[in-house]
Amino acid sequence: MMIVRDPSRPFAPGVPDLAAFPHAEWRRVLGRLWRRPPLDLMCGIDPLGHPPLRRAIAEHVGRTRAVRCDADQVMVVGGSQQALDLVARVLIEPGDRVLVEDPCYGGLAGVLRAAGAVAEAVPVDADGFDPALAERRCPEARLACVTPSHQFPTGATMPLTRRLALIDWAARRGGWIIEDDYDSDFRHAGQQAASLQGLDRHGRTLYLGTFSKSMFPGLRLGWLVVPPSLVPAFVAARRTADMAPAGLTQAAMAAFMEEGHFGAHLRRMRSLYGKRRRSLLDAAARILGPDLPVTAGEAGLHAILWLPEGSDENAAANAAHAHGLAPTPLGFHRVTKGCPGLILGYGNLAGWDLDDALKRLLSAISPLI
Amino acid sequence: MMIVRDPSRPFAPGVPDLAAFPHAEWRRVLGRLWRRPPLDLMCGIDPLGHPPLRRAIAEHVGRTRAVRCDADQVMVVGGSQQALDLVARVLIEPGDRVLVEDPCYGGLAGVLRAAGAVAEAVPVDADGFDPALAERRCPEARLACVTPSHQFPTGATMPLTRRLALIDWAARRGGWIIEDDYDSDFRHAGQQAASLQGLDRHGRTLYLGTFSKSMFPGLRLGWLVVPPSLVPAFVAARRTADMAPAGLTQAAMAAFMEEGHFGAHLRRMRSLYGKRRRSLLDAAARILGPDLPVTAGEAGLHAILWLPEGSDENAAANAAHAHGLAPTPLGFHRVTKGCPGLILGYGNLAGWDLDDALKRLLSAISPLI
Repeated sequence: MMIVRDPSRPFAPGVPDLAAFPHAEWRRVLGRLWRRPPLDLMCGIDPLGHPPLRRAIAEHVGRTRAVRCDADQVMVVGGSQQALDLVARVLIEPGDRVLVEDPCYGGLAGVLRAAGAVAEAVPVDADGFDPALAERRCPEARLACVTPSHQFPTGATMPLTRRLALIDWAARRGGWIIEDDYDSDFRHAGQQAASLQGLDRHGRTLYLGTFSKSMFPGLRLGWLVVPPSLVPAFVAARRTADMAPAGLTQAAMAAFMEEGHFGAHLRRMRSLYGKRRRSLLDAAARILGPDLPVTAGEAGLHAILWLPEGSDENAAANAAHAHGLAPTPLGFHRVTKGCPGLILGYGNLAGWDLDDALKRLLSAISPLI
Repeated sequence: MMIVRDPSRPFAPGVPDLAAFPHAEWRRVLGRLWRRPPLDLMCGIDPLGHPPLRRAIAEHVGRTRAVRCDADQVMVVGGSQQALDLVARVLIEPGDRVLVEDPCYGGLAGVLRAAGAVAEAVPVDADGFDPALAERRCPEARLACVTPSHQFPTGATMPLTRRLALIDWAARRGGWIIEDDYDSDFRHAGQQAASLQGLDRHGRTLYLGTFSKSMFPGLRLGWLVVPPSLVPAFVAARRTADMAPAGLTQAAMAAFMEEGHFGAHLRRMRSLYGKRRRSLLDAAARILGPDLPVTAGEAGLHAILWLPEGSDENAAANAAHAHGLAPTPLGFHRVTKGCPGLILGYGNLAGWDLDDALKRLLSAISPLI
């Protein structure tokens, strides 16, 4: 079963509120750039990316996530998927064992398979990834892919002790940590946890993020912050993969950030998504009742509807699709078996009657659970 | 030594005349799209690419290059480099032997190395790649990467008999032909040779092209036409590599083509580059003399200055760089040793005094040859 990211259907995961995007500001930035396009942007062959955008990203992640880097460590990528693929090209040899969270982002599995790696699934708990459990399960692993700020998709936040233990593991093993900070631009509750990268005094962490949710997925822009020693290898891998990102799109993004449009948009969306999350949790408790609990992590754009043990989440997702809704079965992101559930995106719920959507969801799945 | 594609220096290879680009039309297309951006473009997760752009590309290559395909076989890629990388992901197993032209595009070597393939270099002659020689050299190969319309970088055109022999080889071996048609939008002399893909009744040819020269390199858009049976494998590889191309850039390119701007731009540039090629060949004969012959294929945007046997092309390129010029040594694209030379891009010669640039080139390299 495929992820359907039809932006017109309620509960499609990973889709931000596109109607709330500041189209006029973005259009103005693009129009201005195209009135006098710099020749180097029309060529645009820097494999690390456009320097002003790398500076703006370094500043953004430094300020909001306590990431410690300078612009020379930032590579502009075509989204998180490409970041993971480049990591695999540079750091994975066929046969390597790689620690992954279970469940985890489904696109990671394809990258590991293509690189010939063996994914070692480590079940997450309420504190996310457990480094001690991981090391017991697979003592020889030297690469761990984690989502410490907002575990995908369960939403758990990894506490400080586990973060420090993971950094210690990497330092002892000469290993690497891939920190996928895919949606922490939107934190709705609790304290903003600093990035794991910012805690790592050993320089063993690669930090990746994306503009897919803070801007829009079709922009295809994200970033990868790598330790200085790995920069040349990533440059070589990028040249082989696709040379460089598009020059003008990067310049537009840099201007959008430098002029404060990005920051203002983030602030507006944080408030909007925070309210939407609250409304979803309230309405779900009221309409779906205690047997179908909905939980949402403290960040991001999705919640999870937990189905009763033994129910068929794929059948439930298909039934929801037949009712015009677009949740994703949790199993799409699971490496091993686990409690069934549906991922409910709430980024794109503007313009929908939430109660009506939840009632439709209930009537779709009721016969199946 | 690295390729310097500084667009401000004479003879930089692969750089089109960026000042002649119709900026106003492109800006209008972008502005119109951003006034009412369709939601599916802002999401833009079709790994094959935006359907209207795939249709426009299929129509363009069908009409101008006799490529036989429909839009469902077209994948929009981020330039030729990504096309080659996707080909390697789908068609190459570690240890495979792959037939390549010698010399050939330097970016191909990196892709083959990353895929664990062994490049089997087949020296080109005045008719380009020789399938009979290739089969004698490496009877077990099942993949051949060729530039039949305008051999890169020598400029040779592969005649019909060799094309048919190569197709026959692929059909007999169950092999695949990668036809890189990187710059045949600009043909200046001779008959426009149809693509090899269009001759292939066995469906063994993958055809790739790029907008880097017909539009501008920083656009990062190109295409890959694959046989229908390979489409699912390429879709899977693309999802793993970087999900999908940017939605709005593709929509702008589609509109630019549908509204005739692209065709009009190509016609203007064909005439302009044809005159520039003629001027370069004339001025080079006059200024560099018969001991430093300059040849240019019947298509494309570059010529070759052949250096005397035994001279050091890297030293010559470095000396030219020190004189503010940006030719590339031929050896950058050579798999084995061969006659030394410099690649002279003539796409970006607008605004330069050609005689002056050639005199500077002569005084730079004279002490070294």
